[in-house]
Amino acid sequence: MVEYDQANDEVRAIYDEIMEIRGIDFIPNVFKTLATHPPTLRRLWDGLRQVMAPGRLDPLTKEMIAIAVSATNGCEYCLWSHTAAARKLGLDDEMLGEVMAVTGMFNQTNRLANGYQIEVDEIYRKAALGPES
Amino acid sequence: MVEYDQANDEVRAIYDEIMEIRGIDFIPNVFKTLATHPPTLRRLWDGLRQVMAPGRLDPLTKEMIAIAVSATNGCEYCLWSHTAAARKLGLDDEMLGEVMAVTGMFNQTNRLANGYQIEVDEIYRKAALGPES
Amino acid sequence: MVEYDQANDEVRAIYDEIMEIRGIDFIPNVFKTLATHPPTLRRLWDGLRQVMAPGRLDPLTKEMIAIAVSATNGCEYCLWSHTAAARKLGLDDEMLGEVMAVTGMFNQTNRLANGYQIEVDEIYRKAALGPES
Amino acid sequence: MVEYDQANDEVRAIYDEIMEIRGIDFIPNVFKTLATHPPTLRRLWDGLRQVMAPGRLDPLTKEMIAIAVSATNGCEYCLWSHTAAARKLGLDDEMLGEVMAVTGMFNQTNRLANGYQIEVDEIYRKAALGPES
Amino acid sequence: MVEYDQANDEVRAIYDEIMEIRGIDFIPNVFKTLATHPPTLRRLWDGLRQVMAPGRLDPLTKEMIAIAVSATNGCEYCLWSHTAAARKLGLDDEMLGEVMAVTGMFNQTNRLANGYQIEVDEIYRKAALGPES
Amino acid sequence: MVEYDQANDEVRAIYDEIMEIRGIDFIPNVFKTLATHPPTLRRLWDGLRQVMAPGRLDPLTKEMIAIAVSATNGCEYCLWSHTAAARKLGLDDEMLGEVMAVTGMFNQTNRLANGYQIEVDEIYRKAALGPES
Repeated sequence: MVEYDQANDEVRAIYDEIMEIRGIDFIPNVFKTLATHPPTLRRLWDGLRQVMAPGRLDPLTKEMIAIAVSATNGCEYCLWSHTAAARKLGLDDEMLGEVMAVTGMFNQTNRLANGYQIEVDEIYRKAALGPES
Repeated sequence: MVEYDQANDEVRAIYDEIMEIRGIDFIPNVFKTLATHPPTLRRLWDGLRQVMAPGRLDPLTKEMIAIAVSATNGCEYCLWSHTAAARKLGLDDEMLGEVMAVTGMFNQTNRLANGYQIEVDEIYRKAALGPES
Repeated sequence: MVEYDQANDEVRAIYDEIMEIRGIDFIPNVFKTLATHPPTLRRLWDGLRQVMAPGRLDPLTKEMIAIAVSATNGCEYCLWSHTAAARKLGLDDEMLGEVMAVTGMFNQTNRLANGYQIEVDEIYRKAALGPES
Repeated sequence: MVEYDQANDEVRAIYDEIMEIRGIDFIPNVFKTLATHPPTLRRLWDGLRQVMAPGRLDPLTKEMIAIAVSATNGCEYCLWSHTAAARKLGLDDEMLGEVMAVTGMFNQTNRLANGYQIEVDEIYRKAALGPES
Repeated sequence: MVEYDQANDEVRAIYDEIMEIRGIDFIPNVFKTLATHPPTLRRLWDGLRQVMAPGRLDPLTKEMIAIAVSATNGCEYCLWSHTAAARKLGLDDEMLGEVMAVTGMFNQTNRLANGYQIEVDEIYRKAALGPES
Repeated sequence: MVEYDQANDEVRAIYDEIMEIRGIDFIPNVFKTLATHPPTLRRLWDGLRQVMAPGRLDPLTKEMIAIAVSATNGCEYCLWSHTAAARKLGLDDEMLGEVMAVTGMFNQTNRLANGYQIEVDEIYRKAALGPES
């Protein structure tokens, strides 16, 4: 991991950006680790800022999706960091309970659908493509 | 798959419930397949109704999480059916684009965090547990 | 895919073994594909014979575990071939229903345990290691 | 996590049920965590009881499938708890060795079948659907 | 999917870039699909160009890693497109056989290591961090 | 885990082979664990030697694929041991950064391709099969 004091100018500039934009006064371990390969740190940080910015989905909804993905993949670091971020945005135990219930349920049904190799209903295929297609 | 006409009374009652509650006039293949094992059909249908009911999260948010989970697991049936369900609740191409961008991004970062075996920041661990813990 | 007529002597000998031991008169596509890399065909076929031989677990139990793994991973080829193999060994719709119910359930609970990052009970840790440890 | 003493009546009733039915005198962490969202605790506990009850598959076979699924998904909590449960039902090192050998082997072949995008043999497709279809 | 003729100026400029840099005269379906959400198309295309450029690893090695990842995740589109790209860079059946053998083997051992919850050897932990840590 | 002193002759012979061929003076925990089921230890060790031997791909390339697979699956033991092995073969932070960047990127695009259920381009399908098909 690259500490702030050891970082070159390029990395230090990104660290400053991270702390300012996130309103925090420490560098999370994930960025200190990615800094061992500066182009990846740059690309990931820029991507995260773009993807997590408020859009048609609000930041809390995005963090709840991040929790669902991380629970599905079993990523320990990600679960702690995204749950922490979601808490800051207002997630309480009941909302987290619903995120987990939905995540657990569809991990279950995904396997039933795969396990039985269920054929897609033509009506879903059409509806999924949307009016724009 | 068990067609409506072949179904016994127990299964037919569930089929009727599904069509009524979902406001559809066909039995999706997933339920026709689960009907080969009636206790699983009963348990899954009851669970789905409970989990997907409006709660602290609205039904569209829940369907977006279902899409994120199904994309992460690569479940073809589930992707078509949940995208169809979300379309019905108002999902347009831009919202779907954001769901996919978030899902893709965190499938990426999940692997970076795992791949480098990044240690959890103590500050995230505390924040994630929430004020209730 | 390497057809029987195109196969070299090494591959043809394995094909003959497969047909004899499995009591079939065709070469499944998986072996015709692995034959594009003969050392992998040899290693996999030998491994499969060893692992699937009757042992403390009977062949049907092993095929049910194969179905559970393949459903969890979403492998289409594997699901059709292992379900076919299990049918031959006596699997009926009710047993398949139980395999799927268990597989679905634990794909669900796996994500809840990961999602909440639940700490392992010390009592389970000790019991799991068994009397031999 | 919700301790027994902090639990409301609904949760405490479920805790009592768990201890009685499982014949244990402590609440496993998974249930203390699910209790932060009581409807999920209720649904999961009821589902587990139904799915794990002796049926056409005996409880040990079900626990071995649970181990295979949890190993495939890499769920730490689940591996310790299901291996502990299976030990109680008689699983020894040799049986566990066979469960792991089968689980490992099909995680391998699943990727070979996916990686080469092997086409399903028509003969398997028919056999898998079974005589009932 | 957004066809070239329907694309707005921003998307068309990316399409032109893709065809020029890849030396192809068609737009692959993945980009026509991502074009339904232009910021994702832009971010992904820029990221792909950066990540796949020759670096310390040559492009064929990168494509082989892409095949290994896609086989592990079971992504049909990705397997066909990355295998095609690797073929163009010189991948023959024997090299593909080795990629698959390695991918299959470690999908197997990953589950054995997880399944038995094997403790990390301290000597590996130190060596993995490298001389730079 | 089976220590060297407790091992029977068959296991001890494999332990000796492992230490000699790998040029190490300890038994890694993975082998001490697999030794609880000697036929699996034998099969895995023989398979590893065959698969990891220099071939058309050099050993470092194979270890980098092992890292990519293990990061995708989130296997802690495997990540430490394969990163250690790759370090010994010359992997530095920049190369590891490229392996991770490629692994992360395709875990992202795999989900976008799955999530949108993108149809395979016919041109890729043909090119992937190679001139030999």
